[in-house]
Amino acid sequence: MKVAIAQLNYTIGDFETNKLKIIEAIERSKSQGVDLVVFAEEAISGAPAYDLLNKVNFLELCEETLVEIAACCDNIAVLVGLPVQNGASKTVSAAAFIKNRKIIGYITRKYVVQRDDATYLWGGEGSAMVEVNGRRVAVVVGEDVMHPAEFTGRDADVVVNLGSTKYARQRIEKRYDYFSGLAFRLGVHFIMVNQIGGNTDVIYDGSSAAFDRKGRPIALLASFDEDYRIIDLDRENAPVEVPYQDKTRNVYKALRLGLRDFLRKNGYSKVCLGLSGGIDSAVVAALAVEAIGAENVRVLLMPSEFSSDHSVEDAMQMVRSLGMQYDTVSITDMYRVVLKDLAPVFGARTEFGVTEENIQARIRGMLLMALSNKFGHLLLNTSNKSELALGWCTLYGDSTGMLSVLGDVYKSEVFDLARHINRHGPIIPENILLKEPSAELCPEQKDTDYLPPYDETDSIIYRMIEEGQSREEIVNAGFNVELVRKIYGMILRNEQKRYQLCPVLRVSTCPFGALRVMPITSKYGF
Amino acid sequence: MKVAIAQLNYTIGDFETNKLKIIEAIERSKSQGVDLVVFAEEAISGAPAYDLLNKVNFLELCEETLVEIAACCDNIAVLVGLPVQNGASKTVSAAAFIKNRKIIGYITRKYVVQRDDATYLWGGEGSAMVEVNGRRVAVVVGEDVMHPAEFTGRDADVVVNLGSTKYARQRIEKRYDYFSGLAFRLGVHFIMVNQIGGNTDVIYDGSSAAFDRKGRPIALLASFDEDYRIIDLDRENAPVEVPYQDKTRNVYKALRLGLRDFLRKNGYSKVCLGLSGGIDSAVVAALAVEAIGAENVRVLLMPSEFSSDHSVEDAMQMVRSLGMQYDTVSITDMYRVVLKDLAPVFGARTEFGVTEENIQARIRGMLLMALSNKFGHLLLNTSNKSELALGWCTLYGDSTGMLSVLGDVYKSEVFDLARHINRHGPIIPENILLKEPSAELCPEQKDTDYLPPYDETDSIIYRMIEEGQSREEIVNAGFNVELVRKIYGMILRNEQKRYQLCPVLRVSTCPFGALRVMPITSKYGF
Repeated sequence: MKVAIAQLNYTIGDFETNKLKIIEAIERSKSQGVDLVVFAEEAISGAPAYDLLNKVNFLELCEETLVEIAACCDNIAVLVGLPVQNGASKTVSAAAFIKNRKIIGYITRKYVVQRDDATYLWGGEGSAMVEVNGRRVAVVVGEDVMHPAEFTGRDADVVVNLGSTKYARQRIEKRYDYFSGLAFRLGVHFIMVNQIGGNTDVIYDGSSAAFDRKGRPIALLASFDEDYRIIDLDRENAPVEVPYQDKTRNVYKALRLGLRDFLRKNGYSKVCLGLSGGIDSAVVAALAVEAIGAENVRVLLMPSEFSSDHSVEDAMQMVRSLGMQYDTVSITDMYRVVLKDLAPVFGARTEFGVTEENIQARIRGMLLMALSNKFGHLLLNTSNKSELALGWCTLYGDSTGMLSVLGDVYKSEVFDLARHINRHGPIIPENILLKEPSAELCPEQKDTDYLPPYDETDSIIYRMIEEGQSREEIVNAGFNVELVRKIYGMILRNEQKRYQLCPVLRVSTCPFGALRVMPITSKYGF
Repeated sequence: MKVAIAQLNYTIGDFETNKLKIIEAIERSKSQGVDLVVFAEEAISGAPAYDLLNKVNFLELCEETLVEIAACCDNIAVLVGLPVQNGASKTVSAAAFIKNRKIIGYITRKYVVQRDDATYLWGGEGSAMVEVNGRRVAVVVGEDVMHPAEFTGRDADVVVNLGSTKYARQRIEKRYDYFSGLAFRLGVHFIMVNQIGGNTDVIYDGSSAAFDRKGRPIALLASFDEDYRIIDLDRENAPVEVPYQDKTRNVYKALRLGLRDFLRKNGYSKVCLGLSGGIDSAVVAALAVEAIGAENVRVLLMPSEFSSDHSVEDAMQMVRSLGMQYDTVSITDMYRVVLKDLAPVFGARTEFGVTEENIQARIRGMLLMALSNKFGHLLLNTSNKSELALGWCTLYGDSTGMLSVLGDVYKSEVFDLARHINRHGPIIPENILLKEPSAELCPEQKDTDYLPPYDETDSIIYRMIEEGQSREEIVNAGFNVELVRKIYGMILRNEQKRYQLCPVLRVSTCPFGALRVMPITSKYGF
């Protein structure tokens, strides 16, 4: 039996495009004598569709698209994912099984995870067996694959899992391991087909795979790209090697895909951002150039009286090395007029402080938004996860933007990305990688004035956010008790700032906003 | 049997304060010969605690607090809500049953709603029967009360429901109706105890109640205030009258409570806001004065060259009538400097448009944040739900603020609130109620230049958002097809702006951001 795996990039609610992609893969399969072609979970609708999953009209359009797809399935079997209403008018995630132009039935997902898109779905009947040319195919939708007791012991020839699994650091290799073990334990062929592509903050990495009865990978589809593969289950398939999964390279590819798809699917052709001479905006600019070309990236340099000479020089070197359109607007005059006009309001409170620092950042945010509004460029946010954790950003200042590229990437990882970007030669000037991070909002300011170097700070933040460790556990791991208390407090107190941030491209299992939700009004931990 | 209902205002994670409140009510009950005192769901922890519900340390603190409470329960029975871990290390919402200082056991909530705080909980065992002085008490936690088949037919003397039910328009009367019908059908006494108070955007209205076997209300506790009531189930209790639930008055009280608690629980004593001379900022200012006193409300008037004379006059009249501290800062100079500095960037694109309108709004946002930063006042956002739906706000401009007071209130309801505020005499000048709404960002601008008057626009938005109607359904109800298409499109396109908004005090079942979540990247409806 020949099975085709079609790993495609879908857009939420773009039924016409999704349909054409699906039909194209079906036609290609027919011409190559394929018996069964499989598509990902929610292929017809795109995902994650959130509350659209509970709009009757949205579900009707899914159903209509399915009918049009079925009409093309002469002499072939198809498994394709879409949301459907079950008897109780509740939306479930289903795999439609089509055989020779007939929609035979739906296999629905039983286990929903109470987070993210699954929050908007209900549990269905669970996995089921279908028959294709005399072979028994166990069909498993989504996370049900984590509950193998539900589909084992049924004597299947092959298990097919329609997935929509998001990228997160090191998840690709974990997934391979899990599926390999599953195929071996069950003693069956195992096929998992995933979506690929970015939808708002979510990135599907693809990485669909097939394993033989011994758990050996016999097909590994591309990560971060569309792909298509035919496997003949009647032949002896030589095992393929699992390529080394370089963490930084994968994060880089994930961000590039997420950025590219956010622009393309939302109808933007160009982006703008502020280039400070620091490493965060340098990495975002380089990523954007890689994603959509230098001719589509426009930067603004906005020096102030506190900007160091090297900042402007380093930013200009970036501009020249990448060939981006740029403008320089000094914020000095605007800053002075704002302070002058506010002087009667501030009265005796003339001391320089956070207020004055924030005014500078907010003037920059206003200029960037003006550029964005005037020319229709999408403004990219350049904050990183460490800053967002600590609250080291100015709301409506450097926290502006419609998409945060690095908001799920720790500061120490930003350096890794910069070195990866420079792997074939200097794109980001060496000086940007070497100099000490500074917001340059007051004289001689350095990030290390307040906290230790980022490697140590990041370790503490990582333990708290990603590992969910308590203060006691972190201290027991050897970190300074006062430092842990300080960082823990900073993280808890800044929920309010993170609440107002734009979508953050996700590369972890606990991105701020999406999968880590804390109450703002709370006394816990203070 | 004497049962006491303790309706209290809890703070998330403030275990000490929550405990003292609970113990005080227990002591009061003991002194009055009460047999059983009942508290709300998640009373010990506060709610909604979101991801804190999955922190082991948070759950341990809940447990420790429970032990301290139990130590005070000599010769009395207590039912009190808290989150606990069940055997599978999953967090469930429980009612702890304490009798004479001993924690007898936990009754856990079975049904979780896949939204909001319940997203972070797992389903437990469901309702159970406990015994107090020979009486059979059926204990039902949270939403399980919506599944009466689970606790009927067990021959209870009284059903006690520990709830944490949020306020939404007209929900109080619906709740009374439901409980009344339930008591009548089951033929038992029915008691529901709710939380009261604001936590971030959520408002618990209290409105705890007791019904007799005939479904007649025998005790109705306060709405939007703490309350305490003892009912003797052995006596014939005279039915009480259900007071008229005025929609506008309830929304007003809900917002005042939500605002007051946001400030109090987050440690703010003063607020600031921009006063434009329009109705939205006038209503927010009046509400803030009602909530925390005029001496704690500071306003900024920020006229531009496009501001009408009457705007400044009307704003000044508000300032005088309420006695708030105010400053006037013209944005004209700043606006000119920004345009001058941006002229080289804009080049030939010198036409006045949205960019220039937004610059004005963003200068105002910057000034308000400067005031907020300098004096530590909390900045209140003044956008209403109609504007947020249509995208009629400037991101980082008038959309700034840490709490949106009117973001779940339609423009036509804002007028109702203004009339309610003026019920004892003019607080908001009549002219503000009469004049046509305008953003005053360009000459002669009026909201009705783009759309019909708000009554009609609001009807269409309401049908789409609150009723979930499709375009076809709205058109079939008699609205203009082009207008419906236009508004529908505006609503869908502006998800991106709403994503970055601060928390919005909730008075509906579908506030933006919290309970209506749409993907940004989506082609649906275009």
